[in-house]
Amino acid sequence: MTKDYPPLKSVPGFSWLGINLGIKENAPDFGVIASECKCSSAGVFTRNNMPGAPIIVGREHLQDGQLQAIAVNSKIANVATGQAGIEDAKNMCRWTAAALGIAPELVLPSSTGVIGQRLPMDKIQTGCESIPEKLGSDPEFIENFARAIMTTDTHPKWHCVSIDNVTLLGVAKGAGMVEPDMATMLSYFVTDAQMSPELLQQMLKRVVNKSFNRLSIDSDTSTSDTVIIMANGLADVVDAENFENKFTEAAVSLAKQITRDGEGSKKLIELTVSGASSQQMALKVAKSIINSPLVKTAIHGADPNWGRFVMAVGKVFEYPVSLDDLSIRFGSGGHGMNVNAENLESKKVNLDAISKYLQNNEIQLEVIVGNGSYAETVWGCDLTKEYIEINAFYTT
Amino acid sequence: MTKDYPPLKSVPGFSWLGINLGIKENAPDFGVIASECKCSSAGVFTRNNMPGAPIIVGREHLQDGQLQAIAVNSKIANVATGQAGIEDAKNMCRWTAAALGIAPELVLPSSTGVIGQRLPMDKIQTGCESIPEKLGSDPEFIENFARAIMTTDTHPKWHCVSIDNVTLLGVAKGAGMVEPDMATMLSYFVTDAQMSPELLQQMLKRVVNKSFNRLSIDSDTSTSDTVIIMANGLADVVDAENFENKFTEAAVSLAKQITRDGEGSKKLIELTVSGASSQQMALKVAKSIINSPLVKTAIHGADPNWGRFVMAVGKVFEYPVSLDDLSIRFGSGGHGMNVNAENLESKKVNLDAISKYLQNNEIQLEVIVGNGSYAETVWGCDLTKEYIEINAFYTT
Repeated sequence: MTKDYPPLKSVPGFSWLGINLGIKENAPDFGVIASECKCSSAGVFTRNNMPGAPIIVGREHLQDGQLQAIAVNSKIANVATGQAGIEDAKNMCRWTAAALGIAPELVLPSSTGVIGQRLPMDKIQTGCESIPEKLGSDPEFIENFARAIMTTDTHPKWHCVSIDNVTLLGVAKGAGMVEPDMATMLSYFVTDAQMSPELLQQMLKRVVNKSFNRLSIDSDTSTSDTVIIMANGLADVVDAENFENKFTEAAVSLAKQITRDGEGSKKLIELTVSGASSQQMALKVAKSIINSPLVKTAIHGADPNWGRFVMAVGKVFEYPVSLDDLSIRFGSGGHGMNVNAENLESKKVNLDAISKYLQNNEIQLEVIVGNGSYAETVWGCDLTKEYIEINAFYTT
Repeated sequence: MTKDYPPLKSVPGFSWLGINLGIKENAPDFGVIASECKCSSAGVFTRNNMPGAPIIVGREHLQDGQLQAIAVNSKIANVATGQAGIEDAKNMCRWTAAALGIAPELVLPSSTGVIGQRLPMDKIQTGCESIPEKLGSDPEFIENFARAIMTTDTHPKWHCVSIDNVTLLGVAKGAGMVEPDMATMLSYFVTDAQMSPELLQQMLKRVVNKSFNRLSIDSDTSTSDTVIIMANGLADVVDAENFENKFTEAAVSLAKQITRDGEGSKKLIELTVSGASSQQMALKVAKSIINSPLVKTAIHGADPNWGRFVMAVGKVFEYPVSLDDLSIRFGSGGHGMNVNAENLESKKVNLDAISKYLQNNEIQLEVIVGNGSYAETVWGCDLTKEYIEINAFYTT
């Protein structure tokens, strides 16, 4: 395990695997999370109107707030595969359940990768049979799982937090087709905390809204976005507020890891829009900036082309901002370089300093749009030639 | 003049110039269109809330529906320059008017290029003084004008049509920051037809809506978008319906020229979404597809990744489409290759043929979303490494 990764801890009662079934050539392509007992569970899924078969089956299986296992494959998303695809997702659950000796409805299926292809069900059936002998709870098994769900991700992603004597671990994958609007990509959280499914579901919605729903890699909303949390209750009841704070911290960490590892991305952009007169305005303006290909390419080239921020603020037709009220701050805190009407007039904008700042690989930006009291923070990445390279020949 | 360009004809009563004033290094950077008499005129401008100074002044000057000249510079857009920028735009009108012996309110100013920089007014003043000696009405003068308004365009753009004994000529520039939402980029039409400003304005809105408002290069809406038509009335009154049809034809031609010459673009995509239950639905779905970076990169790489169309249709949350109703046709007419639930099931989709078709530099696509009676056609282009190259270092 590379030492740059965040620390990784086992969670009592959960075991993992990540193996190659021959869907990808060599890399792991099939992963399982299994709990030793039923878990209170909650999930949020993509708002895309063409959800993948696993989303349809997963929503069904989550209805009673109980899960005991998750089975995921990468490389093929099992989306736009009709009734046959739904049967495939159900079989993935059946075979996983049989191997674990549990009910199929306790398994959540997930698939990520190319849309429109059928899964190689023979390989998956063989893989499922090997689940019992391949599961393990040590960090290396968790890492293998995190690798098995990767598509164009360049590294596995996790974040682990402790709340009192309880552990919460999240694992995620991202890369492309990422502008979650309700949930995102694949992200699985497990904890040994005791919590009701209802509380977990409400909490998950709020957490996702503050983390994954605030990131955009390329403005495309996937058909497979899924965030799941499973709580097996082996540890104590935990203070809910405390847990939610740490849960948010872990989700934000994963959202940032996903953004930083966006397809072709070289830079993580953290943008706060403040001074807005409503939450909705702050978010709309922030999304307009973070999704603008001209802003993204300028940041890629460390071009201090602040005029593109003006354009991106201005194209949110429903929330007019006066140029006199606009201030763009490159860098955080007292060290930020401001661009606003006043220092433009007095020619105090230091473009060289902004350009130098934009050469960092973590960029912090604040755009102040007025005297309102609302602010929103979003994460995005630069747009590079590598994004084109990765996506021009994805299936060929 | 390269022979690939559409034919170019003078319009009686209009003269032109395109010269270098030293704003760009060598290429022409200043253009003027002058009519020998006042013209009925109409215009539509960007909906961006941060319009450039020339837009603000131009709206004022157009209020009475009369113009006699247009003065344009490229390289610097005179946007986000405050009150000083507005004075600059007004001076550009004053000096042009003085040289032509007309009122300043009869001049429409335009600027295109980098946002946030002041115009070099000394150079523009000198340039304006040379207007009378440099104007001419032959096609070469029109071509010089068309070149003078270019920024990252790789070639000048015009389209000329005849309606009875009347001529209509449009000249345009595009390239980047192009997703007009009310008007677009810079585009100027002149005609010797007789027409009232009111009729012209109504007609222009409809024409723009069917042409420039249906194109997207990169989803960014410029702060300088402008479409103007000037009718000097030297020829006859003309059948309005006939004129509008030809006007639409010219505007669609320019919209397509702009799209084909989008920054880094290698391919023109013409996409029709049909079978929608409303105009709004057809347009929303079409925009979602044509703006999707994953669709654009797939087409760039001739990757038959039709699943990305499914994703882009599905992310229009407000208009759900069933996968069973969806059909994606690559190529036009009877030769099109369909992807739909039926032929997917029977494995009759020929991905190789689709990939081969996508190697063309003009791609026609139809996406059928149901049994409704509404359809919309939009134009877009592929997303390439050259787009990144052009935009990563635009001001540096």
